Amino acid sequence: MMIALLTHFGTRDGYVAAMKAVIKTICPTTGIIDISHEILPQHIAQGKFVLWTTYRYFPSATIFVCVVDPGVGTNRKIIAVKTKDYIFLAPDNGLLDMIVAEHEINKVRQVTNQKYFLRNVSNTFHGRDIFSPVAAHLANGVKFRSLGPAIALKKSPRIFTDVSGNGEFNGNIIYEDRFGNLVTNLKMKNKSGSKLKINGVTVPLKVTYAEGSEGELVAYTGSSGLLEIAARNGNARQLLKAQYGDRVVLAAK
Amino acid sequence: MMIALLTHFGTRDGYVAAMKAVIKTICPTTGIIDISHEILPQHIAQGKFVLWTTYRYFPSATIFVCVVDPGVGTNRKIIAVKTKDYIFLAPDNGLLDMIVAEHEINKVRQVTNQKYFLRNVSNTFHGRDIFSPVAAHLANGVKFRSLGPAIALKKSPRIFTDVSGNGEFNGNIIYEDRFGNLVTNLKMKNKSGSKLKINGVTVPLKVTYAEGSEGELVAYTGSSGLLEIAARNGNARQLLKAQYGDRVVLAAK
Amino acid sequence: MMIALLTHFGTRDGYVAAMKAVIKTICPTTGIIDISHEILPQHIAQGKFVLWTTYRYFPSATIFVCVVDPGVGTNRKIIAVKTKDYIFLAPDNGLLDMIVAEHEINKVRQVTNQKYFLRNVSNTFHGRDIFSPVAAHLANGVKFRSLGPAIALKKSPRIFTDVSGNGEFNGNIIYEDRFGNLVTNLKMKNKSGSKLKINGVTVPLKVTYAEGSEGELVAYTGSSGLLEIAARNGNARQLLKAQYGDRVVLAAK
Repeated sequence: MMIALLTHFGTRDGYVAAMKAVIKTICPTTGIIDISHEILPQHIAQGKFVLWTTYRYFPSATIFVCVVDPGVGTNRKIIAVKTKDYIFLAPDNGLLDMIVAEHEINKVRQVTNQKYFLRNVSNTFHGRDIFSPVAAHLANGVKFRSLGPAIALKKSPRIFTDVSGNGEFNGNIIYEDRFGNLVTNLKMKNKSGSKLKINGVTVPLKVTYAEGSEGELVAYTGSSGLLEIAARNGNARQLLKAQYGDRVVLAAK
Repeated sequence: MMIALLTHFGTRDGYVAAMKAVIKTICPTTGIIDISHEILPQHIAQGKFVLWTTYRYFPSATIFVCVVDPGVGTNRKIIAVKTKDYIFLAPDNGLLDMIVAEHEINKVRQVTNQKYFLRNVSNTFHGRDIFSPVAAHLANGVKFRSLGPAIALKKSPRIFTDVSGNGEFNGNIIYEDRFGNLVTNLKMKNKSGSKLKINGVTVPLKVTYAEGSEGELVAYTGSSGLLEIAARNGNARQLLKAQYGDRVVLAAK
Repeated sequence: MMIALLTHFGTRDGYVAAMKAVIKTICPTTGIIDISHEILPQHIAQGKFVLWTTYRYFPSATIFVCVVDPGVGTNRKIIAVKTKDYIFLAPDNGLLDMIVAEHEINKVRQVTNQKYFLRNVSNTFHGRDIFSPVAAHLANGVKFRSLGPAIALKKSPRIFTDVSGNGEFNGNIIYEDRFGNLVTNLKMKNKSGSKLKINGVTVPLKVTYAEGSEGELVAYTGSSGLLEIAARNGNARQLLKAQYGDRVVLAAK
């Protein structure tokens, strides 16, 4: 079995260690892979993208524990979502939107069965007290349906825009990575684009950022199939003063 | 078997990787969990708390390797401490104080048996050359008593103050986490507190920080059972200009 | 089996997670150890040293995946290098120079066999699409020679200077660690040095940095057998305004 962890806890304070310790106590044989613990505190958009860009590479039957959770301690729900290959545990705050947008989801449970929680549940650390033990019990073979009542999932907002053929396509910046590369929600179905406009700047489309000269802005289809903007050995985000949500316009030929 | 690692080495330079490589060479079957490697260099108080707040969640028989070690290369001792459930390896510099304060400890050894060290021991990296191989040999079944001579442990200073019933309770800040939350040494036995004073500011007690309004300071019983101070989606440490050791006074009703 | 990972991807964006997910999908039984993912983007000198200082501690037959790769998406080669104990995968950009300098290497392959790549290879993320699946297939028993054609390896530049006996020895700074310690390429065969000059400052040689008084600069044989410069509880790099490549002169007596 495999459990994958995505959180905003950082790795300094021992929060993630406590989660792993709980998991290994309940299910000693499961593997654990860290997706990221450096999601900015409460930054759901960032967490959502990192999850989406990685989950498809995991072994079948992986259980994903996703904790970017500004509502911990309030009455927000915890949900479990089952796709053909995976199970996802997350607060009901949009963190799974990009997963849900890609799959027919008909198995969703609200996680309420305290039998699978730690005995004492704190008000501030459900990652340790609820998410981790529930994931470990699932890894031990506990039935998905025993987690709690079936619930309906709100339909996710439309996230991606498919780009194929000619015309103009509008999109947005949905992620900035540590290199300062900007990722858009334009899904490139072919390589026919020509120019991208963002924040008043026109950026040429290339096959890869290595085609740009030093520091030059280039757009290209990134490793997730989305249109990205980078500056070779530079920082596109800073050069464009860009942020989450900024509008981009692609002229495809 | 499980070995847990707590160090101030960071994850950039490969120090931790060398420790894990040594462990896996000697004991290929052991699991390894990182508690934290981001303890500030030489910051024993920080390491002490992170260890204390996580260790109890680990599987029984876990071996803890704790290296926050300003005295490496001097004649400071390395000690091995055995509790009912766990073994801890650490320099004799107070790093285990919070563990020792919670347990009857009658098994303590000074780690001197070079049979379980790497052949060449450097003067600067005992994490790799002593701590890791000793832990791996323990995981392989080496007897605790064979590590070196039995020694007496200095009595740990009193760390926590139990809060129950009415009255006034004095405490201190013993940890600041990455969110800027402040942890005190006041152990909340019930939820009867009313107001906390720190650095001239009075902070109301709530059930959880999510009850505060945006940026408002609130005190509450944190996930370790200790009284904490946070600002919802803000940074309590900065708002209060607080640091390790700052005094707090709780009026409990 | 064991696969060790060294990259410049950081741990925030999920790049490393995707690599691990690919590895575990292809070879579920392999262990994975992170060497470092905090190599500065494109900083080959830093990656080279961290690899060299750790690799020798890994279990025999470990496969090293090394991705500091400014040339990804260009026609730079990917190479596989086999030593007596290990296999290394890396771009052909000098990242393995310090390994190659220490070994008789007669088994080198260019990695070209797409049978062991992911089906869709992106232009920007060969860590996920080529390096990881190739390493996992090797861990599954795929023959080294099946990776691609045998190639000759450029002779590595001379890196270390052995220091033994009397005289004057010239060297360079080849690494700065997170503590601000400076590592030179002077390999100390005995402990006979007396004084080190760097950037107009003369630094005394000691057995270990703990011999220095608070903040004092000292030189000593570090945990890799190389001469290092540190300031006790201080930052030698800042004190000496030092950087990669700075010249040092050792007077050995």
